[in-house]
Amino acid sequence: MADRLYLSSHLPEPVLVVGSVAYDGIITPHRSVDRVLGGAASYASVAASFFAPVRLVGVVGKDFDPADRARFERRGIDMRGLQVEPEGNTFFWRGRYLPGFRQRETLETQLNVFAQFHPHLPVDYPNSPYICLGNIGPDLQHTVLDQITGKPFVLADTMNFWISSQKPALLDLLKRIHCLVINDEEATELTGEVNLYLAGKALQRLGPPLAIIKKGEHGALLFHHEKLFVLPAYPVLHLEDPTGAGDTFAGALIGALAALGKTDFSSFKRALLYATAAASLTVEAFSVEGLERGKAPEIARRVDTLKGMIALH
Amino acid sequence: MADRLYLSSHLPEPVLVVGSVAYDGIITPHRSVDRVLGGAASYASVAASFFAPVRLVGVVGKDFDPADRARFERRGIDMRGLQVEPEGNTFFWRGRYLPGFRQRETLETQLNVFAQFHPHLPVDYPNSPYICLGNIGPDLQHTVLDQITGKPFVLADTMNFWISSQKPALLDLLKRIHCLVINDEEATELTGEVNLYLAGKALQRLGPPLAIIKKGEHGALLFHHEKLFVLPAYPVLHLEDPTGAGDTFAGALIGALAALGKTDFSSFKRALLYATAAASLTVEAFSVEGLERGKAPEIARRVDTLKGMIALH
Repeated sequence: MADRLYLSSHLPEPVLVVGSVAYDGIITPHRSVDRVLGGAASYASVAASFFAPVRLVGVVGKDFDPADRARFERRGIDMRGLQVEPEGNTFFWRGRYLPGFRQRETLETQLNVFAQFHPHLPVDYPNSPYICLGNIGPDLQHTVLDQITGKPFVLADTMNFWISSQKPALLDLLKRIHCLVINDEEATELTGEVNLYLAGKALQRLGPPLAIIKKGEHGALLFHHEKLFVLPAYPVLHLEDPTGAGDTFAGALIGALAALGKTDFSSFKRALLYATAAASLTVEAFSVEGLERGKAPEIARRVDTLKGMIALH
Repeated sequence: MADRLYLSSHLPEPVLVVGSVAYDGIITPHRSVDRVLGGAASYASVAASFFAPVRLVGVVGKDFDPADRARFERRGIDMRGLQVEPEGNTFFWRGRYLPGFRQRETLETQLNVFAQFHPHLPVDYPNSPYICLGNIGPDLQHTVLDQITGKPFVLADTMNFWISSQKPALLDLLKRIHCLVINDEEATELTGEVNLYLAGKALQRLGPPLAIIKKGEHGALLFHHEKLFVLPAYPVLHLEDPTGAGDTFAGALIGALAALGKTDFSSFKRALLYATAAASLTVEAFSVEGLERGKAPEIARRVDTLKGMIALH
């Protein structure tokens, strides 16, 4: 894989990414697209591929464009875990961002083949040492963990929809993972704490020793055991489409951890820089185009900018 | 002055603080007070007094409580610039914070003696090397600068009320100051830029080579010539009353700069840490009680916490 960032002297171990692969129709205050590659696993796996070998687990339908398959292949992503259901169509979502991008509304959801999705891990996937449970139902996230052998580091994303519709399964999941990645509103919804520092502590009490609260343009809070790290967002000057920013963040984060080969506080801070830089590329374009265009050197450049923005000396 | 932080090896030069000295009635979602010491100059001068000698310029009425005068005196603040108008009462403001502290509404404003306030600088004030123009009308801020001799470093605060009611005077003022301190909404209102990084650049184009955009719980952005520094807020766990946070921030900032004796990028970053720490004390109590209770060692402790929160290594 040519377009990769090598963050340590050892060869990165593989990252398993599970989530939705979808087509999105997106209306923003500036521009709209009818149908672009989307889904949590698409963003997360492309982002992770800048740092480590990626094993994708997902499902698509007969309408899945070979050109989109080629995009994953160009990133060196292992596609054996991408099930193709010849009878149905790929998950489709259509939504609209309101002015200022402060809120978005769903206009249409066609689950299609995703409605019957049952993640099956190909033969060598279960021993993956890094696992990214993308933003899908906690029941499916459990299914993946049930097939795992070995003792991987597990990161999970979730969203308000699952907090309200599958809370017991989500609470069980939190006891099986190492790091939860969640946005500010969701952290408050899940813990009842408006104060994000208290919310982070409350998330840790629910299970994961590590928690990250994403605050969009205001950056992210990392709760690492009893330690706290706060990182601003990369200063994006033109926001094209925020879709996939969180998935990109999660994918780049676990990819960078795999590349570093460690998950201690110091390594997590470094990984957070890369996750933040990668997410900033995603929001500057539709679909995974920002990541494709930016490439590894641009991620590295943005990490340097971020370091400069927070350096005291 | 016993309760002071010494930030460099030389003796700090005096800071002139001008602004309102007031009584506030404040209703918060948790607790209310009928009448406490408030006003931009009260918060700013108490905050600055942790770092440098302070010269206060303001006006009060016959109802000004000797106990409140004693609070300033205990902080070693030079009160010769505090005019006492025996015919009237002190500026009074009453307001209410809505749940979540996201908005506040003014219930009552009695300008009283402040309506006729004309800042007069006592004989040795005009040569003050550091000036903090607290959040009062730009016409009054101009009046102060008109009396200045020498070449002080000038920091100014403002608010949406002046942006809409005295915009031309404010735009003129921006050409006479070195640093503007403003919150996110005000920065957008003044520049028309929703993106705060673009807003900061736009503020600099209006005059001041330095600009700080405060984002409340999300910290602050420092635009220092062509350089950028981003600092999170101190993690306040109990918000009692946000009144005066911005004034405290401005006062501690200019005080710390005076204590450092320099206004270069590196010194400004250090001063920003102290400003952030001081503001966090103010919001944990009504009036200047948080600052009085916290004292210099607690400010220093919070600065260390902030440094730890942003340290990569």
